[in-house]
Amino acid sequence: MARTLILDLDTGIDDSLAIAYAIGSPEANFVAITGTYGNVDVDQGVRNSLAVTELLGRDDIDVVAGVPHALERDGFDVLEISQFIHGRNGIGDVEIPDATRGACAGDGVDYLIAAVERFGHDLVYVPTGPLTTLAEALRRKPEIAGSIGRVVLMGGALTVPGNVNAWTEANIGQDPDAANEVFRSGIPLTMIGLDVTLQTLLTYEHTRVWRDLDTAAGRFLADMTDYYIRAYETTSPHLGGCGLHDPLAVAVALDPSLVTTLPLHMSVDVTGPTRGRTIGNPEKIGAPHPTCEVAVGVDVERFLDMFMTRISAVAAGEKTA
Amino acid sequence: MARTLILDLDTGIDDSLAIAYAIGSPEANFVAITGTYGNVDVDQGVRNSLAVTELLGRDDIDVVAGVPHALERDGFDVLEISQFIHGRNGIGDVEIPDATRGACAGDGVDYLIAAVERFGHDLVYVPTGPLTTLAEALRRKPEIAGSIGRVVLMGGALTVPGNVNAWTEANIGQDPDAANEVFRSGIPLTMIGLDVTLQTLLTYEHTRVWRDLDTAAGRFLADMTDYYIRAYETTSPHLGGCGLHDPLAVAVALDPSLVTTLPLHMSVDVTGPTRGRTIGNPEKIGAPHPTCEVAVGVDVERFLDMFMTRISAVAAGEKTA
Repeated sequence: MARTLILDLDTGIDDSLAIAYAIGSPEANFVAITGTYGNVDVDQGVRNSLAVTELLGRDDIDVVAGVPHALERDGFDVLEISQFIHGRNGIGDVEIPDATRGACAGDGVDYLIAAVERFGHDLVYVPTGPLTTLAEALRRKPEIAGSIGRVVLMGGALTVPGNVNAWTEANIGQDPDAANEVFRSGIPLTMIGLDVTLQTLLTYEHTRVWRDLDTAAGRFLADMTDYYIRAYETTSPHLGGCGLHDPLAVAVALDPSLVTTLPLHMSVDVTGPTRGRTIGNPEKIGAPHPTCEVAVGVDVERFLDMFMTRISAVAAGEKTA
Repeated sequence: MARTLILDLDTGIDDSLAIAYAIGSPEANFVAITGTYGNVDVDQGVRNSLAVTELLGRDDIDVVAGVPHALERDGFDVLEISQFIHGRNGIGDVEIPDATRGACAGDGVDYLIAAVERFGHDLVYVPTGPLTTLAEALRRKPEIAGSIGRVVLMGGALTVPGNVNAWTEANIGQDPDAANEVFRSGIPLTMIGLDVTLQTLLTYEHTRVWRDLDTAAGRFLADMTDYYIRAYETTSPHLGGCGLHDPLAVAVALDPSLVTTLPLHMSVDVTGPTRGRTIGNPEKIGAPHPTCEVAVGVDVERFLDMFMTRISAVAAGEKTA
């Protein structure tokens, strides 16, 4: 059964791999990308989403800009560490042509609300950056929490330390207030955090497969991802590869059996020294009907097989839709 | 099959309930209590362990003092909050006679090492305070990590905030260095943290059952536990009862099926602002053969039934050994 997918991306490198994964998934009805800030600003992210989808032969996918900064802030500046990991242009400083089309008019928040009304429980929304666009949609129309199929987000860290500091993961850290509102909203949610994404690693051996295809898409995916692997060699040398954060969220959106999860009432610390930490809601310890599933285990081998099969097909120019 | 149990207690109120639970468990070969500091100092804890075991008719259980303060400290002072929760004498300011016997000579560290040599894989060690005695034993004789049956400890918080501050649970907070050494030692370990112990709550309705037995043991257990419930009314009014921290660890030592666990390589933050936090070892994310099982779910109803059956039998004066 096809699942309708909308990704919410701050289109950096692993976001672009998430786009490729979704395009390479025959069971996905991949209809749109809402744009958020984080790895890059919204404008650059939207530019990248348009360019990558067109390069990969899918200029039918709607791209629409979402909220450009955190709920409680007035603006956003890309962090130096983000530029180091994703490049100044967000896609590893690899040059690809601007898309021939533009973004959809309107904003991503209204687009999301309309999509929930249209697709209902068939819709899976996959935010892989800050949760601002989804939080704003829940403020404008709280009812969507009960009518969307599921949110599968990349973000947070429950059983392992964060990557911004000892307790904060980068996506949640951009807008802890938005994340806390989403986590506590009752929306059915799967959290794909560092607990699992740091287990799914890609190496130069993998990217060589794409480069050897000698296609424009293959060269782009390989060069861009090599930039990311090089950054990981500096920031996390003990891992031995780069974390496939965002593609894992898309993969789980399409096949939840890739992860084992812990059902919990989740929250985000918004006050005190641990602001930005994802943690069980202390007021709901053991309460019935938890709405979050926190991924704590992942079938690494099966995911990597699926990832390589799907991205390689896209890199070879085999369109699935 | 009988399991040989040694408890490591800072004998406050729930430690005393843990003693009663072990005494009331026919499948337990309950041989000894090593004494640690925390709710009270070691001397008061040893005094309480001797008095409680004698009151409950089991003066055959060895009691021996362990390490009196944290590894990296020179001394120990009982915190005001500990006195508030457990009373100045550790057992809710209820007066019971001193035991007619004294503690064993020697120290708890050597006692534990000798017990591991004697009982081997039959031995389950249940620390419900700081992990100093066990850490010191591992320093003196690292081989015990491979020859003990299991350690089932009450301490830590993985999926929920701490109770000392947002990230530190009280037992771990007393000696994070010791806890970190124990967690990383490779010893087979089950962590019974706030994740589960704040789900297992006792109320005045339960303690009334013991008081109505009109025995010395029943009155003692009821009066002492009521003090604890009153403290919880101040510190954690949203819970609606007191957490059965230490007895749950003993229960799981005897029946692991009471909890669901997450296998993890665990560690304790010993540096930085989150000193005292229990968290997955970031260098071993996804590594094979995790040695810790972290309890994340508990069969509340079955545990409370077992707890009431066993404590009530002990309160009624029905000895099981």
